[in-house]
Amino acid sequence: MKIIAFQGVSGAYSELAARAHFGSRKIKTLPLTDFPKVFLQVESGKADYGMIPIENSSAGSIHQNYDLLQERKVSICGERYLKIEHCLLAPEGASLKNIRSVYSHPQALAQCASYLRKKSNVVVKPYFDTAGSACKVAEDGNPTQAAIASRFAATRYGLQILDENIQDHEYNYTRFLLIRKASGKDWGRSKKDSDYKTSIVFALKNIPGCLYKCLSIFAIRDIDLLKIESRPIAGSPWQYLFYLDFAGPADSKALSHLTEITEYLKVLGSYQAGILEPAT
Amino acid sequence: MKIIAFQGVSGAYSELAARAHFGSRKIKTLPLTDFPKVFLQVESGKADYGMIPIENSSAGSIHQNYDLLQERKVSICGERYLKIEHCLLAPEGASLKNIRSVYSHPQALAQCASYLRKKSNVVVKPYFDTAGSACKVAEDGNPTQAAIASRFAATRYGLQILDENIQDHEYNYTRFLLIRKASGKDWGRSKKDSDYKTSIVFALKNIPGCLYKCLSIFAIRDIDLLKIESRPIAGSPWQYLFYLDFAGPADSKALSHLTEITEYLKVLGSYQAGILEPAT
Repeated sequence: MKIIAFQGVSGAYSELAARAHFGSRKIKTLPLTDFPKVFLQVESGKADYGMIPIENSSAGSIHQNYDLLQERKVSICGERYLKIEHCLLAPEGASLKNIRSVYSHPQALAQCASYLRKKSNVVVKPYFDTAGSACKVAEDGNPTQAAIASRFAATRYGLQILDENIQDHEYNYTRFLLIRKASGKDWGRSKKDSDYKTSIVFALKNIPGCLYKCLSIFAIRDIDLLKIESRPIAGSPWQYLFYLDFAGPADSKALSHLTEITEYLKVLGSYQAGILEPAT
Repeated sequence: MKIIAFQGVSGAYSELAARAHFGSRKIKTLPLTDFPKVFLQVESGKADYGMIPIENSSAGSIHQNYDLLQERKVSICGERYLKIEHCLLAPEGASLKNIRSVYSHPQALAQCASYLRKKSNVVVKPYFDTAGSACKVAEDGNPTQAAIASRFAATRYGLQILDENIQDHEYNYTRFLLIRKASGKDWGRSKKDSDYKTSIVFALKNIPGCLYKCLSIFAIRDIDLLKIESRPIAGSPWQYLFYLDFAGPADSKALSHLTEITEYLKVLGSYQAGILEPAT
């Protein structure tokens, strides 16, 4: 039975994403307190896979996980989009008008920012994760406290659902990545599958217009860029690592070309793209 | 006397940046609880300026402020780099080995991540701002609690300094932007000053290789790109706004050219570049 590590406590969205990804296959999920621990367990082989959130359609990227993908010896081997339907959960006996504090992960709070702004009597409390905030609110049993988490977390921790679908945008998906121990075999794959996606990270050489030149490598080959993200390089202030997703497998000609004009290049993984539901 | 709004309580790094920027000129600083309030006070004219952090050399960008620059009717009119020297502060009678919880802003906690990881008995508590965490620790007077904040905050709240310069990277600067009410006069400026910098935000048209084409507009004119950052467009899932800083004033030819291939373009401001100390 495969072991899948995730950050959070039982009932976390990452665990739901792992269960959705593996479907009817039997898996064992391993809850861990933080993202670096998820990467370490996967890198050391103690977990077969890790499921990590990388981006939310409203709140943006989880930058810590971009940094960890670059630093740790792991490969991306899958992608999963999960619809996030946040609920306001509170202990039995609580009522919507008496809630004074709302606990949740900062990303979940960001995704419900408009909803929370309308509640003037409520203090927002950042917490380490969504399901964890549900667990805390259940343990405290204080009817003025609420948590923002999934419907599943309500069942898991015996809380009542005061309000549901409270995210600002009805279309609220999180993109998760499945990671495994690095195999070193991502580069040079030539899978014909058109539904493949490749993620890379690189640092520019100090030559004029270098980013423009890097993007031209894909443009001249008609390779679609799907996403670009920049992050500071630790220890090299005001210099950036660029994270790029492009459509298709890890094209070895484009990547060889890219090594000519980059200081550093790492292929993070080449994997089947997850199914993304269009906004209606 | 000019009023400068900032997020945080007295002693915040943003307040120090404002005082450093205005030097000997007399100013009144206005502490506010969150960034949207800073933008609203500036937009409504109740404050003459706002001083906001936008990026840290180790921890990266403050994305909420990118979003607010795009949404609100303000212009960037100045830039300031401030060296961030974090200290571990605690009430009188506390000692380093007895600290069990450390409060600070998530960005400050991120900047001291390695330092904190070594303290296995310590629980990290995200707090709304650095100086505010110092104020909280002073009010609680609990010798097992500490805050990460500036040396100035120690004096301000009567705390002792248990440890100093605890940030992971000795070179730890935050870039602050000075904002004022939008004047609509940023576009088309033709200041010859070579030390000017311009910030823009745009959304791509749905044409192949559009980002590459946008960057080519600057490349063909030998305009240096200083930074690029992407953020999701609220309500348009998986589409991105690109924030771009380039060297020089708001070149009207390049910007007119850019309007041809973008869905949306806003000039956030054209301003004298702050002095950036090189890493040694």
